[in-house]
Amino acid sequence: MPGNSIGQLFRLTTFGESHGAGIGGVVDGCPAGLRIDLEAVQHELDRRRPGSTTLGTARKEPDRLEVLSGVYEGITMGTPIAFVIRNADARSRDYDALKEVYRPGHADKTWEDKYGVRDHRGGGRSSARETAARVVGGAIARQVLNGSGVQVHAHVSQVGAVRSNVRLAELDFAMTWSNAVRTADPAAVRPMTELIEEVRADGDSIGGRITCSITGVPAGLGDPVFDKLHADLGKAMLSINAVKGFAIGNGFDSIAMRGSENNDAITPAGNSTNRAGGIQGGISNGEDIIFEVAFKPVSTIAKAQETVDRAGKAVVLEAAGRHDPCVVPRAVPIVEAMACLVLVDHLLRQRTARL
Amino acid sequence: MPGNSIGQLFRLTTFGESHGAGIGGVVDGCPAGLRIDLEAVQHELDRRRPGSTTLGTARKEPDRLEVLSGVYEGITMGTPIAFVIRNADARSRDYDALKEVYRPGHADKTWEDKYGVRDHRGGGRSSARETAARVVGGAIARQVLNGSGVQVHAHVSQVGAVRSNVRLAELDFAMTWSNAVRTADPAAVRPMTELIEEVRADGDSIGGRITCSITGVPAGLGDPVFDKLHADLGKAMLSINAVKGFAIGNGFDSIAMRGSENNDAITPAGNSTNRAGGIQGGISNGEDIIFEVAFKPVSTIAKAQETVDRAGKAVVLEAAGRHDPCVVPRAVPIVEAMACLVLVDHLLRQRTARL
Amino acid sequence: MPGNSIGQLFRLTTFGESHGAGIGGVVDGCPAGLRIDLEAVQHELDRRRPGSTTLGTARKEPDRLEVLSGVYEGITMGTPIAFVIRNADARSRDYDALKEVYRPGHADKTWEDKYGVRDHRGGGRSSARETAARVVGGAIARQVLNGSGVQVHAHVSQVGAVRSNVRLAELDFAMTWSNAVRTADPAAVRPMTELIEEVRADGDSIGGRITCSITGVPAGLGDPVFDKLHADLGKAMLSINAVKGFAIGNGFDSIAMRGSENNDAITPAGNSTNRAGGIQGGISNGEDIIFEVAFKPVSTIAKAQETVDRAGKAVVLEAAGRHDPCVVPRAVPIVEAMACLVLVDHLLRQRTARL
Amino acid sequence: MPGNSIGQLFRLTTFGESHGAGIGGVVDGCPAGLRIDLEAVQHELDRRRPGSTTLGTARKEPDRLEVLSGVYEGITMGTPIAFVIRNADARSRDYDALKEVYRPGHADKTWEDKYGVRDHRGGGRSSARETAARVVGGAIARQVLNGSGVQVHAHVSQVGAVRSNVRLAELDFAMTWSNAVRTADPAAVRPMTELIEEVRADGDSIGGRITCSITGVPAGLGDPVFDKLHADLGKAMLSINAVKGFAIGNGFDSIAMRGSENNDAITPAGNSTNRAGGIQGGISNGEDIIFEVAFKPVSTIAKAQETVDRAGKAVVLEAAGRHDPCVVPRAVPIVEAMACLVLVDHLLRQRTARL
Repeated sequence: MPGNSIGQLFRLTTFGESHGAGIGGVVDGCPAGLRIDLEAVQHELDRRRPGSTTLGTARKEPDRLEVLSGVYEGITMGTPIAFVIRNADARSRDYDALKEVYRPGHADKTWEDKYGVRDHRGGGRSSARETAARVVGGAIARQVLNGSGVQVHAHVSQVGAVRSNVRLAELDFAMTWSNAVRTADPAAVRPMTELIEEVRADGDSIGGRITCSITGVPAGLGDPVFDKLHADLGKAMLSINAVKGFAIGNGFDSIAMRGSENNDAITPAGNSTNRAGGIQGGISNGEDIIFEVAFKPVSTIAKAQETVDRAGKAVVLEAAGRHDPCVVPRAVPIVEAMACLVLVDHLLRQRTARL
Repeated sequence: MPGNSIGQLFRLTTFGESHGAGIGGVVDGCPAGLRIDLEAVQHELDRRRPGSTTLGTARKEPDRLEVLSGVYEGITMGTPIAFVIRNADARSRDYDALKEVYRPGHADKTWEDKYGVRDHRGGGRSSARETAARVVGGAIARQVLNGSGVQVHAHVSQVGAVRSNVRLAELDFAMTWSNAVRTADPAAVRPMTELIEEVRADGDSIGGRITCSITGVPAGLGDPVFDKLHADLGKAMLSINAVKGFAIGNGFDSIAMRGSENNDAITPAGNSTNRAGGIQGGISNGEDIIFEVAFKPVSTIAKAQETVDRAGKAVVLEAAGRHDPCVVPRAVPIVEAMACLVLVDHLLRQRTARL
Repeated sequence: MPGNSIGQLFRLTTFGESHGAGIGGVVDGCPAGLRIDLEAVQHELDRRRPGSTTLGTARKEPDRLEVLSGVYEGITMGTPIAFVIRNADARSRDYDALKEVYRPGHADKTWEDKYGVRDHRGGGRSSARETAARVVGGAIARQVLNGSGVQVHAHVSQVGAVRSNVRLAELDFAMTWSNAVRTADPAAVRPMTELIEEVRADGDSIGGRITCSITGVPAGLGDPVFDKLHADLGKAMLSINAVKGFAIGNGFDSIAMRGSENNDAITPAGNSTNRAGGIQGGISNGEDIIFEVAFKPVSTIAKAQETVDRAGKAVVLEAAGRHDPCVVPRAVPIVEAMACLVLVDHLLRQRTARL
Repeated sequence: MPGNSIGQLFRLTTFGESHGAGIGGVVDGCPAGLRIDLEAVQHELDRRRPGSTTLGTARKEPDRLEVLSGVYEGITMGTPIAFVIRNADARSRDYDALKEVYRPGHADKTWEDKYGVRDHRGGGRSSARETAARVVGGAIARQVLNGSGVQVHAHVSQVGAVRSNVRLAELDFAMTWSNAVRTADPAAVRPMTELIEEVRADGDSIGGRITCSITGVPAGLGDPVFDKLHADLGKAMLSINAVKGFAIGNGFDSIAMRGSENNDAITPAGNSTNRAGGIQGGISNGEDIIFEVAFKPVSTIAKAQETVDRAGKAVVLEAAGRHDPCVVPRAVPIVEAMACLVLVDHLLRQRTARL
């Protein structure tokens, strides 16, 4: 089926382009009978909004959520929940210069290679603005998860070479939202912030890492062959703009380890360690699910770059548009949203696993 | 839908348990009219077989492919291609001791948490033996890709701390199959081999990394929102037993980079570099697709380990069964197979992208 | 997956309730590069609108289509085409009396049995108003079909016992839209109209039949096991409100026939007859596709009816709301829309059937 | 996705050609923990077998079911249940004459139009032999339904012009299997049998009707927009070879009825009548589900017929192969199987409808 949907039983379909009428989506499969808090959904949306952190762009997008269906008297009806966020402050003329030029690191040329046509304004549908719809879907998913005690928390664990070394269990995730860089590690706030400011001043950008912790997950979630729980989480994360890598548990570090070091001993009180990251054989084991997501530096920079125009001629691009020097602060709600979507889908799938 | 299928248009469904009647699968959606070389499929299957490398287990599994449908007079009919590989040398009694005990690092406990029942013999369906069916499906996919000039090559780029530093473009992938460790880097063969032998002598296991290169990919493959080409590749890889991480292009290294370093300049002759790994915005850009897969050390080791039995009582496990000290040599054909499956699916999907 | 989507490659997802903010949908998988005529889409929507025929209800619903995404400068972008039709003239208070009562023949009680909750206003999502979104999706599908020469025409072939006996090939389908009853048979207009008026005067309703003819279909469409072309058409038709039966070709009449009477002889110039209705073994054979759809009489009538309230107590219902005495005149565009959706989906699927 | 699968959560994929190695399938999504009776499955398979009724062909196909996976110690494991039925008595040479000729009424020409290639032996995959795999899948589904009290019974209600007029509630469905014509109406056995024998003597064939009754269905099954319960039943039935029509409840008879006659009054003790056939708005209402399926006369007849060869030249076909003069006696288990598959799928889907 076409690629604008995710989830088997709790399915989000998104639509919309950066400079079209709006961005939105349809959640199909949300169980009936959920008392839904739309203000909480709007609150999550606000966290993703440009301008929500002082380290981001100066764009002002009010991003008001309008729900078109599926909720009556504050209760989900079992019917599709459609929503739209109207676009505003879309200065399309800013992008006129890009109509004939492909930006390095962006999807401008590949979209045109694929479809033969392209909406060049702000990246069209390849814009990270699409993720606003994911945040709404994820926020609805989170409200279903709440009833099951599943909690999803992400934070920025690395910006450039500045890495937080605090163990997740020692973090207070409430802190994430108190600083512009969106890290839950108090010691990391300042060096991360300074690095981003420095990079911005250089007209450049920098990569980052987001770590996510999911607590309260019942054992047994995940379909253990192709739809392993971490495989679905991995796909969800890799589908976010600018993501280049995904690791579950000790991930790439496990390469250099021995089995005797890496296995989690099982004890009557649960696993003694959690190197697996909460998933074994694709199925949740009841421990916290822990994974990491690598984001590349934002492709739009103020520095001049070599590229070609649509005629294939070499040109030098001086960046236009307004962009973040580092994407991870604004990507934290998106990582959480995608994790919520995957978890709720597998929570529903598990209802059919046994007679 | 249930989780034993992968692919939208070229769909592989696998079935079978380690010690049941056999392992097999159904490929639905293989285009009609392909002259299929079943010996070549068997050849790929042989590469994955236990005993295929001197560094693996001593098990002898003949793994003879039987095709049940879909091929007539050597040509695919457009109908499902079903196949089965009968199990043999399945010494189920070896596993009697495991009926009441959960092996650390394995899916024994989580499968039982999920389904309430478990086939404990050799891990049942959680056994890596299931991947034999993936290799068959991937080998069929590869024959479709051949007609489009797409070539998929993987090799072992790291075992434990021993890492190959040769650039992919300089490797001769034909070399991969000439050594038991399955690396295309001549300088890595010996240290990798020695490390695996050392680990085996210790009764332990070690992790590894596989790097995959896909050449000849036309620009335009990938569905650019949730089904980004690298998101589907990532899910496919993360669904392989023991995989803990996936990275496209420069992956986690991009975290510490600046945009001005990381962007690939576009020139009239193509991209000047390939840090993106051949995919931009989820769509292939015509460059080589390059990704890495991290494998944890094999969970089965000869050393004693703490665990619990089905009654929840602490016990010490002395490993039974026969296993590899390092999974990556045998996983190379599996990585290639999964990559072939994803590529052919998107090749077919691309046929419907334009009017 | 949840049940608000139809189609594999050209997929329509609909949303919305009768008295919520609006009705709408998302078309995912429309090929890029189609010059789309939104006025033509609005025109089809107008044909379905209450008040579009003098035989329908007095409700005035302007039903203005707003496209939210997927179209730029009049061209489809390959991205989802989302649209919404705002609800208006929704006199919800008309339905207050129905909050505690289940209407016979309607889905009031079954929806509540299923979901535990219900939006009673105008039937909520079970209202035929949902089909407005289908008409939009179908009208977009039709514009794709136009490029392939496929033409879809339906008309009312029966109202109550009044049946048109003209052979389809002799009909001028342009006539369908010139009369309120939506029949292409000039001789049937008057008796059908009189019957509907008589039934209306009685405060009653009457059933009907719609016959559909699809011309210009290339041979080879349809996936010949579970997704036979007529099986998908049948499901699409049976999913329309009030439909109770579907027949392809000579349908139920074939029961009493002998093979020697029923087989279509194949000649060098094509089939000599078309009893099969254009499909053989689930695959189009190049002849016209012909099928029939049976609609029950509208459940809402002015006469008093026995029913129960939510407490299970017997009550007598005097109908409220405004409804049609016969649904088929307004259902013609819906039948056409569903047929277009199925055809375009299989047209795209056929692109992947061969190497 | 490709068309050889049916069901969302309980999914059957079938494979195999009439004269290949065998026919089989994979059931994915069968809940774990079901004690499965494979003899009962074999028993249902035997009912469909050629030679199972004295009115069918003389072919002897032992049709022995082999289960390859998914069942351990008689219990379903939650993993895919794969099975194969080896082909035997496949006299392929009987079909040599058909290699270059298209049989009227069959899918010979359309398959070749679709795929460009064809396995002409016994119709290849278009053979009704494929339905053996459906019967196995349906028999497994039935064992899941048994635990919920859902009972599926079908019988032959019409052969040619001979129609049973007994109300379903008065039938003893156990009788169906006691006569070769597979009707539960004692009075119909003789005239139906005589008609089939007469048709056979003429070298001709005749159509028929199967009526199906499903009892014990809980209210609330069905996804009420596109996946209405009767829409999914309709598709399932229309996907059976030779089916030309489907009707739920009073079906085509409702066309000529008035709403005041057709509505089922709701009473505190349930509906007073069941004209709707157990489904309202696409959702089961707790009454018996009743539907009818129209089968055309078998296309293979002994009489000479006009057709063309692969070169497009007119030829006269004298039938070869061994076939039934009337398909409905052997189709009864197939109708039941497809109904079981649809019901169990919606039974599982309903588990996720509410919070």
